[in-house]
Amino acid sequence: MECPDVRIAAVGTALPGPVVDNATLMRRFGLAPVWEQWIDAFVGTRSRHLAVDLDTGEIVHSLADIAESAARVAMERAGVTAADVDMMVMGSATPDDLMPATVNCVADRLGVNDVPTYQLLSGCTGAYQALDIAVGALTSGQRRTALVLGGDTCARFLDLDMDLEHAPPDLQVNVMLFGDGAGAAVLTTEPVPSAPVLRTVFHRMVGLGRSPGQVVRWRGAIPSDEPVASEDFKAIEEHAPDMAAQALAELLERLGWKPVDLDYIMPPQLSGQMTRRVADRLGVPGAEEINVVEEIANTANALPFFLLERLLPLMQPGERAAGVSLEASKWIKAGYALELT
Amino acid sequence: MECPDVRIAAVGTALPGPVVDNATLMRRFGLAPVWEQWIDAFVGTRSRHLAVDLDTGEIVHSLADIAESAARVAMERAGVTAADVDMMVMGSATPDDLMPATVNCVADRLGVNDVPTYQLLSGCTGAYQALDIAVGALTSGQRRTALVLGGDTCARFLDLDMDLEHAPPDLQVNVMLFGDGAGAAVLTTEPVPSAPVLRTVFHRMVGLGRSPGQVVRWRGAIPSDEPVASEDFKAIEEHAPDMAAQALAELLERLGWKPVDLDYIMPPQLSGQMTRRVADRLGVPGAEEINVVEEIANTANALPFFLLERLLPLMQPGERAAGVSLEASKWIKAGYALELT
Repeated sequence: MECPDVRIAAVGTALPGPVVDNATLMRRFGLAPVWEQWIDAFVGTRSRHLAVDLDTGEIVHSLADIAESAARVAMERAGVTAADVDMMVMGSATPDDLMPATVNCVADRLGVNDVPTYQLLSGCTGAYQALDIAVGALTSGQRRTALVLGGDTCARFLDLDMDLEHAPPDLQVNVMLFGDGAGAAVLTTEPVPSAPVLRTVFHRMVGLGRSPGQVVRWRGAIPSDEPVASEDFKAIEEHAPDMAAQALAELLERLGWKPVDLDYIMPPQLSGQMTRRVADRLGVPGAEEINVVEEIANTANALPFFLLERLLPLMQPGERAAGVSLEASKWIKAGYALELT
Repeated sequence: MECPDVRIAAVGTALPGPVVDNATLMRRFGLAPVWEQWIDAFVGTRSRHLAVDLDTGEIVHSLADIAESAARVAMERAGVTAADVDMMVMGSATPDDLMPATVNCVADRLGVNDVPTYQLLSGCTGAYQALDIAVGALTSGQRRTALVLGGDTCARFLDLDMDLEHAPPDLQVNVMLFGDGAGAAVLTTEPVPSAPVLRTVFHRMVGLGRSPGQVVRWRGAIPSDEPVASEDFKAIEEHAPDMAAQALAELLERLGWKPVDLDYIMPPQLSGQMTRRVADRLGVPGAEEINVVEEIANTANALPFFLLERLLPLMQPGERAAGVSLEASKWIKAGYALELT
């Protein structure tokens, strides 16, 4: 039994609301213009979109809203209907609810039914994990068309009334670092010649004995004074470049590819600054770099889809692309590779 | 390429704290003894274990705590060490945090590292979804030993200070219906003769156009007045028996088994009452019924492991068992079958 190739037939993305640049964001928190320069210099993220209305504080887009939009774009571009989709996988660290899973609400809106669905609770490597599950089912011949989704909204963590100027530094950085968005990809075993083949995808937890680099907490009915989110930026800065380089090296080794074989590289999109540092460490100067983080900020589970959306129209027959991603949560590294045959 | 059989090498479970019977629970909320009879008659659940200390209100067990305990039991029974485990999948509707995923914290505690891990956000069919992902990776030959986990704790939703007597009925029922627990299974492609072969596993979302039957909400930094949980018990009562019967019929059809071929049946464990009603509808009077819900209540993602733990010592060579499960969230049905060869 020969395993069929899995191809990315099309990708779609969605961003909520208008562009929110650093000046607008800082003004909303009553901060002086000097902060804007600080963000440019140390974070390197220029703008983002948010699911919350900055004027009213109202959450105006759910994750299901933007995931549905992204999925509709991907499905239309791929020329598939709800009846063609025979599995769905979604990654998010900020699902709309604990139950029902957001993937199932999106399925309902799209008219997808009677198929296996999976909701992954995941961070920046979530899209890779979701792709992996879809590839497994497609390769085995069990499924033919998978709709893979990823998205996050930080709306429920963005306390617009907080005193940002006097907040702890990691909370300040969080407000600037993250953005909201969703992405979707249609994966198929149909031999669509214009669709790149997904050559391999992997992700592995490598956090044995290490403290989490990123913690995001949820609350139920019981009040809690614990901070809702915290990051260890020192640890992230220290480990991210090496982890990314290891992920890329492993990816190339799996495929027997050399660095010079890569035409495109999609580095981790932590922040504008961090992405530049990590990309330098990857050592593939011949590959065209695809980045989106400076414009849309870190949209976590959605980001790989935004990168793919830029990549797909660029790829020419015979070209190869690689993506690598990291998750500071409990330290996960991930990679995947595409080839247009 | 012949796909290897996947076997359940061993199962382990863990329950937090002491047995909490209905009298104890009702006393804690200041309710009259008549409530106990009401629970016996209409819920049919006699006791449960809770991750919260009923005297102090303190949450004394995290999900990672009990999942670790369950995993250690399963691994010891299977005779595998952390180094043998080459993937982990966990299902839960109540992960300890949104990030890091609980599965990765459990991996760290067990000494499992450098393997793919998946955290599913799932309800009562979560164990089936997790088994499905593990079976896919094992069948493809990519992995040899999977540690599959499921667990839930309702601690963060159990407001011990609430006025239960005057609470809405679905909140009252919730307090009696759910219990805390975790389970784990070691799956292997080694031809261990004493371990039953997992013949098939499936799960499908079938909620197109239907309102969710169970909603569980989480909160971030922003306060909210929305109820944290709500159930549509009428809809669950109406749909559960048919959905379970359909799941069993589909399972048998996939395998070419007849109802009389089944030696054991593991029905959905919604509550003592509902399980009895659903089991009657399944129409397999010749199969021995395995139930745990009356003793440990509905432990959601953990439940299938408690059933398996009872089943495994009973199974004789040549015997067959089936499990079916439902999730009211956005309506999912699931089934799996075991055979001891």
